[in-house]
Amino acid sequence: MDTLITHVNIVTMDERMSMWTDAFLGVTDGKIAYIGKKAPEEKPATIIDGTGMVLMPGLINAHTHLPMSVLRGYADDLKLQDWLENQIWPREAHMDDRCVKAATLLGIAECLRFGVTSVSEMYDHCGAICEAVAESGIKANVARGTTMFLGDDFDFEKFPACREMMDIHKKWAGYDNGRIKIDVSIHGEYTSSYQLWDAYAEYAINEGLQMHVHLSETKKEHDECVERCGLTPAQVLDCHHVFDVPTTAAHCIWLTEDDMKLLAKRRVSAVHCPVSNMKLASGFADVMGMVKAGMNVCLGTDSVASNNNLDLFEEIKAAALMAKAKTGDPTAVPAEAALMMATVCGAKAQGREKECGMIKEGMDADLILLDFNQPHLIPCHNVLSHLVYAVSGHDVAMTMVRGKVLYMDGRFPTIDLPAVMKELHDYAIPTVFREDEKESAE
Amino acid sequence: MDTLITHVNIVTMDERMSMWTDAFLGVTDGKIAYIGKKAPEEKPATIIDGTGMVLMPGLINAHTHLPMSVLRGYADDLKLQDWLENQIWPREAHMDDRCVKAATLLGIAECLRFGVTSVSEMYDHCGAICEAVAESGIKANVARGTTMFLGDDFDFEKFPACREMMDIHKKWAGYDNGRIKIDVSIHGEYTSSYQLWDAYAEYAINEGLQMHVHLSETKKEHDECVERCGLTPAQVLDCHHVFDVPTTAAHCIWLTEDDMKLLAKRRVSAVHCPVSNMKLASGFADVMGMVKAGMNVCLGTDSVASNNNLDLFEEIKAAALMAKAKTGDPTAVPAEAALMMATVCGAKAQGREKECGMIKEGMDADLILLDFNQPHLIPCHNVLSHLVYAVSGHDVAMTMVRGKVLYMDGRFPTIDLPAVMKELHDYAIPTVFREDEKESAE
Repeated sequence: MDTLITHVNIVTMDERMSMWTDAFLGVTDGKIAYIGKKAPEEKPATIIDGTGMVLMPGLINAHTHLPMSVLRGYADDLKLQDWLENQIWPREAHMDDRCVKAATLLGIAECLRFGVTSVSEMYDHCGAICEAVAESGIKANVARGTTMFLGDDFDFEKFPACREMMDIHKKWAGYDNGRIKIDVSIHGEYTSSYQLWDAYAEYAINEGLQMHVHLSETKKEHDECVERCGLTPAQVLDCHHVFDVPTTAAHCIWLTEDDMKLLAKRRVSAVHCPVSNMKLASGFADVMGMVKAGMNVCLGTDSVASNNNLDLFEEIKAAALMAKAKTGDPTAVPAEAALMMATVCGAKAQGREKECGMIKEGMDADLILLDFNQPHLIPCHNVLSHLVYAVSGHDVAMTMVRGKVLYMDGRFPTIDLPAVMKELHDYAIPTVFREDEKESAE
Repeated sequence: MDTLITHVNIVTMDERMSMWTDAFLGVTDGKIAYIGKKAPEEKPATIIDGTGMVLMPGLINAHTHLPMSVLRGYADDLKLQDWLENQIWPREAHMDDRCVKAATLLGIAECLRFGVTSVSEMYDHCGAICEAVAESGIKANVARGTTMFLGDDFDFEKFPACREMMDIHKKWAGYDNGRIKIDVSIHGEYTSSYQLWDAYAEYAINEGLQMHVHLSETKKEHDECVERCGLTPAQVLDCHHVFDVPTTAAHCIWLTEDDMKLLAKRRVSAVHCPVSNMKLASGFADVMGMVKAGMNVCLGTDSVASNNNLDLFEEIKAAALMAKAKTGDPTAVPAEAALMMATVCGAKAQGREKECGMIKEGMDADLILLDFNQPHLIPCHNVLSHLVYAVSGHDVAMTMVRGKVLYMDGRFPTIDLPAVMKELHDYAIPTVFREDEKESAE
């Protein structure tokens, strides 16, 4: 046995929502090998004292753009189009592989610090992202978010984003026994044309990959699609076979009831991003409606440009609160449901439900420990309630992926944070925020 | 000079929103005595290194019920009436002075840990609350929240809650040079009758005290008042002179436009409690409407039974997000406005605007330091944006009231936290959660 966590309270998130108090959990070869009320007979190489701690499955951030950490807090409190067109896109145009790698490592450090063990990432410069994921030890579904407006001039083999997608698929898919998965990503209905949808759907079907899209995030996007072709974004992408593979659809704020039924049937997972949705004033996703329709609903932070942190515990609380506020019903999305969204449902969206999202013998040891010995968590009448309504990601004391400690007490064993900071300050920030020649000439 | 904070970035929250980088702030006799780019000539007794830190005014929690910390997470995800009548009130009926003192000390520790330097408290057993406030060093406006259904049988001099109010007024008002202030508190329009309103309004006017009420928190409360007497709760309380003194009105969710104009004219401060309002599905307060009408709007956590923590930084973020979501306008309640609500506007509501809420020479040294050397706060393009959208109360490294450090790096110099925990576990929790004789006989 490699590691034994002792005297710990365990929230398994398994099918029966089993809870253990003052229990022992053993890890062997990256897997959960033992759970019990007594210490196992086998001697562990390492012991972690879990007294007064809560152990739960690592959280799954099912929609983010980690390299945007370099843009954190750069442009807030602006109208969406102004924000995107005048602030975010011009900076993103300056990003290169080196910037992206440094910014992704920073983002991963933040994820680990806040108890996230797996992310679904959509961005570009994905080779650099995969390198950062590989080095850090976190799990990730990486997708090259593709925008494409060429129409019939579109040539799949020559289009740079498609080439990048195929390159990372070839180089990184299945890396480290599946720690990295490559998904296919149409950025959104409104940022591409059907030639891309057809080509990517075909590629994903043939290669057995999953899909990651933005869907009905804004009323404008949704309404313009209906006006243009008489179909909702969900319907039109479905016509082009995009949902023939398991799909992660971020936001899903303006879905119709029919959309929800369709997406449930097509096994599409919705990623609810309540903080980003509120900050950008995009609207209130109908989480209860999606769940009732049979959809799998999980949680994402979106990027730190619209959040502005990667603390998924904030999303858990925001999801529970927002559902109550939207429906006027304080029983909507109770604590247990909000926690499932961040664990079991996230794992399902990533196609990782057999490996993580709950604590069970044989599953990967993707685990987090939270320190409950603090004034704001005392008394503790109900652990689940605390995890949703009182806890913060700052209460995470240890984050482990496949049995390997990636964060503990302020330290990141796999990430040289001072070196990452230096790279950000010496290279990434000056590069992203340099003036364009045109700008400076004006 | 008693204390010098060196090489620190200062967010003053003064009228010009002055900001200082790599500056020095000196404290003498509990007051801010020096702010400058150079170290002062006078030698300080103590130096606090502020490198990489942000110094800002301590936060003001303008509506809370600290003794309810003993009920944290006890009953969530329930309908309001079920929650109140079957869960909260039966437990509160068991509270005594000793429970309240222990639970208040726990609540104060949590406030200090999250950067709150002054609270507006409404509860009962207020003598015990004042003792806890006195010992801990925090500032507080303490009010005996009074419910009264007696009608003409009401006898001010004999009614226990009124006696308690007068007792604490006599014993504690102005304690420690105004660190404790006593307010008068009508719990709410729907939990009392006009005989109390008349008597409390008269008392507050004669004694020069402020008022603290719950106002239009739920649609039911608001509508029933209109049905009963043809006036809104704000109008009916105004008719009884309740707002003849500066008043703190918590929630203000269902105010009409006329209510807002009336309350602005009457110098009533609204306390927005966005997390509690969402959790209890009470509705969305119209913060922008109140501000436009000229009201002073500040922030409160409400109690941990409906939150479930006292991290006012969560309210700051929630206020900014909720306003955007409610109005559909991402420019609503920008970062600066949200920070003002938690500082300057809170101080005004408490009648403390001349002593705290901003950093300025001569004001009380009610200050907090936040550690910006962390992955989730890097890079820092905009300090104000970070303070609202990226920071958590957990980033507070030091909390000082009148120049005295009350929290630093996990330690509470004025609160014996292990003793408080012992008192909670040995006495307060068993007392509050004991079975009633009637219950146990059933």
